Amino acid sequence: MQKSLSVYDSDGSTFVPLVVIELVSETKEEAIAWLLNRVRDKQQDGGAELLVEQLTPGAQGTEKDNPNVYVVGASWQRLLYGAEDVGFFKEFNDGSMRGFTYANKHNFKEFQGNLGMAECQYIIKHELDNLRAKDEAHVPGYPKMKLYPGKSVIRRMQSKGILVQVFPLHEKEELKRLSFSWFKKIKLSFQPLDDIRHYFGEGMALYFGFLEYFTLALIPMALIGIPYYLFDWEDYDKFTVFAGFNLVWCTVILELWKRLSASLAYGWGTLSRKKAFEEPRPGFHGVLGVNPVTGRAEPLYSNAKRQLRIYLVSVPFVLLCLYLSLYVMMIYFDMEGWALMIHDEEPTLWTGLLLFIPSIIYAVVIEIMNLIYRYAAEFLTGWENHRLESTFQNHLVLKVLVFNFFNCFASLFYIAFVMQDMVLLRQSLATLLITSQILNQIMEAFLPYWLQRRRNKKAHKRMIKTMEDKELPLSEQVKLEADMSTYLGTFDDYLELFLLFGYVSLFSCVYPLAAVLVVLNNVTEVYSDAFKMCKVFKRPFSEPAANIGVWQLAFEAMSVIAVVTNCALIGMSPQVKSYFPESETQLIMWVVGFEHFLLASKFILTFVIPDVPKHIQIKLSRLEFESLEALKKRHQKEPVYKRLTYRV
Amino acid sequence: MQKSLSVYDSDGSTFVPLVVIELVSETKEEAIAWLLNRVRDKQQDGGAELLVEQLTPGAQGTEKDNPNVYVVGASWQRLLYGAEDVGFFKEFNDGSMRGFTYANKHNFKEFQGNLGMAECQYIIKHELDNLRAKDEAHVPGYPKMKLYPGKSVIRRMQSKGILVQVFPLHEKEELKRLSFSWFKKIKLSFQPLDDIRHYFGEGMALYFGFLEYFTLALIPMALIGIPYYLFDWEDYDKFTVFAGFNLVWCTVILELWKRLSASLAYGWGTLSRKKAFEEPRPGFHGVLGVNPVTGRAEPLYSNAKRQLRIYLVSVPFVLLCLYLSLYVMMIYFDMEGWALMIHDEEPTLWTGLLLFIPSIIYAVVIEIMNLIYRYAAEFLTGWENHRLESTFQNHLVLKVLVFNFFNCFASLFYIAFVMQDMVLLRQSLATLLITSQILNQIMEAFLPYWLQRRRNKKAHKRMIKTMEDKELPLSEQVKLEADMSTYLGTFDDYLELFLLFGYVSLFSCVYPLAAVLVVLNNVTEVYSDAFKMCKVFKRPFSEPAANIGVWQLAFEAMSVIAVVTNCALIGMSPQVKSYFPESETQLIMWVVGFEHFLLASKFILTFVIPDVPKHIQIKLSRLEFESLEALKKRHQKEPVYKRLTYRV
Repeated sequence: MQKSLSVYDSDGSTFVPLVVIELVSETKEEAIAWLLNRVRDKQQDGGAELLVEQLTPGAQGTEKDNPNVYVVGASWQRLLYGAEDVGFFKEFNDGSMRGFTYANKHNFKEFQGNLGMAECQYIIKHELDNLRAKDEAHVPGYPKMKLYPGKSVIRRMQSKGILVQVFPLHEKEELKRLSFSWFKKIKLSFQPLDDIRHYFGEGMALYFGFLEYFTLALIPMALIGIPYYLFDWEDYDKFTVFAGFNLVWCTVILELWKRLSASLAYGWGTLSRKKAFEEPRPGFHGVLGVNPVTGRAEPLYSNAKRQLRIYLVSVPFVLLCLYLSLYVMMIYFDMEGWALMIHDEEPTLWTGLLLFIPSIIYAVVIEIMNLIYRYAAEFLTGWENHRLESTFQNHLVLKVLVFNFFNCFASLFYIAFVMQDMVLLRQSLATLLITSQILNQIMEAFLPYWLQRRRNKKAHKRMIKTMEDKELPLSEQVKLEADMSTYLGTFDDYLELFLLFGYVSLFSCVYPLAAVLVVLNNVTEVYSDAFKMCKVFKRPFSEPAANIGVWQLAFEAMSVIAVVTNCALIGMSPQVKSYFPESETQLIMWVVGFEHFLLASKFILTFVIPDVPKHIQIKLSRLEFESLEALKKRHQKEPVYKRLTYRV
Repeated sequence: MQKSLSVYDSDGSTFVPLVVIELVSETKEEAIAWLLNRVRDKQQDGGAELLVEQLTPGAQGTEKDNPNVYVVGASWQRLLYGAEDVGFFKEFNDGSMRGFTYANKHNFKEFQGNLGMAECQYIIKHELDNLRAKDEAHVPGYPKMKLYPGKSVIRRMQSKGILVQVFPLHEKEELKRLSFSWFKKIKLSFQPLDDIRHYFGEGMALYFGFLEYFTLALIPMALIGIPYYLFDWEDYDKFTVFAGFNLVWCTVILELWKRLSASLAYGWGTLSRKKAFEEPRPGFHGVLGVNPVTGRAEPLYSNAKRQLRIYLVSVPFVLLCLYLSLYVMMIYFDMEGWALMIHDEEPTLWTGLLLFIPSIIYAVVIEIMNLIYRYAAEFLTGWENHRLESTFQNHLVLKVLVFNFFNCFASLFYIAFVMQDMVLLRQSLATLLITSQILNQIMEAFLPYWLQRRRNKKAHKRMIKTMEDKELPLSEQVKLEADMSTYLGTFDDYLELFLLFGYVSLFSCVYPLAAVLVVLNNVTEVYSDAFKMCKVFKRPFSEPAANIGVWQLAFEAMSVIAVVTNCALIGMSPQVKSYFPESETQLIMWVVGFEHFLLASKFILTFVIPDVPKHIQIKLSRLEFESLEALKKRHQKEPVYKRLTYRV
């Protein structure tokens, strides 16, 4: 843990600032004093027992600066207790991963250095979120900001808007080292996943791990695809071989990823970590009642009402959007026909270029529609009032996935199966793929970076100090970071990969070059994503994750759809048709039979390949076995009266 | 717990005999003495701390009787400790299910009466199985019967054949009461599942629960099927409606069963029970090594060798058997054609009956082939040398399932899709269904019962005492029960249900009466199965089970195949064909599209319906939440030095 920066506690002792809390500048004094006291109070008294200090503005402090910025830290002992509370798994002396306990800390390997700053920040966030109201009826100074025993104080202040943000600080030294090994050197190598995990947490590291794995897994497909392009193999027999290879490959790589991510998650201690009980998400509202699980006072919202909102509003809305998307698609085809007509009348270089314009416009429109829909989906999912952040996310992902899938692929499906024009399909595929890649990389990393640089230059005109500056005082660093954009999670990054996977797999037998383009895109994607994480965004809180969650399912669903589309494309090819000259029925029966066979094989393969590698299974069952044995021994050795003492 | 029967311990105190151990009559004295000592030894000394006595032969004891029969029991306190060891979940004072602990026993509802005799017998079996060799190199008196530290003594003696059998005793009073409420009264009612569970354990109760649920679930299908038969609706439009209903219905009932079985298993305490580490199965052999999980000495067998045996011997053997089955099927069709020819030449009543003979012969041959194959499959799976009983069972189930499925349905598939003769299909379906039902019930319950009665009468010619006799002395009861057949588990019973489900679902749109026949069969099946459990077989050890395991998967797979077959049958019907008079291709596309839609809906439905009902989910998460909270409180209250004491 970096110890270079430190601030003085009220007792005069120093501590390392880990997390920043920003309140709105006009917050009432009594509310601030109350909050700080609650944060500092001993745990026995219901406090968080953390260290917190107001940030003293630096020399360049202007009047415009918000004075209500606080830095939070904790004593080393408090952090270790916290590590036990959040249930971190750490490497034990014998090389296995075990639940960290304070009492047993000396038996963990390098337990001093084993707790990274990101983990400390996660602990602080956890403790702040768990700071609960006692008997206060409202936040002092704000009679309308109701509280009830057990309500998370921070979440209430956040949802009512007094609390602007809570964010973890970057570590300049670490960040510099990470940037260097990650994206600043030119030499070809794997990403430093352990360092990424150390700095950004497991969720982020799994995303980058998946991105890298996905890219590597596509390389064989890309290599096989290149000769198709070079030698102009417009031969469906060869395409069929390619598609068959793809279908098996997709299933295998998705299964192997599960095993790889289990290995990674085991090494990071998140595989066997038990999740704590999930609290309601900040935006959740309802009538105050008693949670049947915790017995705590908590807002309740009837499930029936939520279902009504989902089925009577959200579902029709999504269907309407899909219809709109179809409508736009039909306009695109009209434009396409019109461009073709002009080109056929007077074929020049310019009209040749004109042929690409409808596709480009359509790609841009699709991106815009996706963006607008995304906001609408977020609003609607919020309005559905889900109790948990995880169910909120699942519903949001589902809505956005369906629309994006439809938006991106509807025109390709139309061209492939209604128009049955393979040349146009290939051309559209190429245009869509390339346009969306370029747009994405601009929108995602360089635009925010450029905007922020401009803003920073305006704000701090006289001082040209930037994040890179080593001797930047704490107050300046906090100010700079507070102004950085907030990273909204891995959602968009996964979505992009998902759509790219669709371009590669759905029509792979028509356009083998897609894999090459996606590989090229992913290589730059690694750099631009790494760049944006290190330079553009505030440091996000680390998220302990054991797998890529709902995305695994989404990718698997895509690979099932790919079997269906590829079989249909193969069945439509003239070469395959020529095998059944007399009867089209027989051709279709064969194709359908082949498709069913492939689908069945996929499911059997998914079932046969174990999700967790053998050596990790052994370690996991060893841990379980030992805890069972320990329990037994305890029963045999200890007299009955002693047993009663620690059973609750 | 029944206390009427009791034997005297060596100390002069009485105990209730629970389990019988039978050794071969010529077992050496020193081996017997050693075994009894180990069973009686204190747990600290590595014994099982159970009570065991030799059975004194009754007045009618003849010289032929085996003297080496022992009854095992335990003190009440030992049983309660055992209940904690095996991890039973019992009803707590607050109505939730919690892991039973001896120290906390007073907080469990009716903890005295809460432990049934079947559970006590399970505990004794568990403790006997866990009796491990210490430093003995072999069983005393048998230098060839090698032991090594940690080897289960009972399993070694069983696999070497000195130990004939270990079985739990019936409770005559309880059995009488159970029989009466289960199958002796005529009045229509649900089965007494809780009583069945109490007497035979959760595995058996879940089987009977599933049998009942399955029967009830088929009633709507049967009711809709009856008018088809009565009014001779040979109308494919109506059949299509029926098939559509069936497909949705099958998915829904299988999903709802998961929820119901979760409810049952929660109430019986098996849903959240953690499984102990699984020991190698008795027949497993290999080179002595160290188990990586337990660290104990244990035979090891390389997985690669096992895979070789599976893929190079078992798989080819299964394929060969499938080929043979196909060959027999072709002979059946020749016979069928020959009978039809005779009937066409001279149609009389006798030749009309002759038409059914090939089907009946085929059904009998199928049953015989299934029986022979079953033995071969058991031998092969044993030879594959699986380490765990559960993987052994899975491989056996898979082998038997594939062959039985093929054997029972291949001819029907051939008639339906190759010959496309719907009248013959219906006729074969009816013959196969009825013949196999009648054969099954005879083979399963009445034949063994009759054989055993004959044997018993021969053996005990002079005394006409039977199980029903109330004043039967213990030694006579034990002798009678030892001679009863051993129940080999629920495998065959589930397999029968699985095949019946196939008859109902696969071709439902051709023969709607199948559901009626299956319902009728199941009603008698409940009675014959109940009868055989109570009268024909030795009491089996209870098996804690939380669900029906691999059978859920098998039934789901069958319902997926049913979607495919029914869609194909609908597509082949003349009525549906008449909608697409000009193009057969379009018809097939529609049918395939419809089939894909149905399959997709099935998967979505499986995904959307939660497997565990909400109220049980809440109870489970409440328990988890409380244990997390308890852990936290412990950390906050207890000083550090005390923490160290009970962490292992």
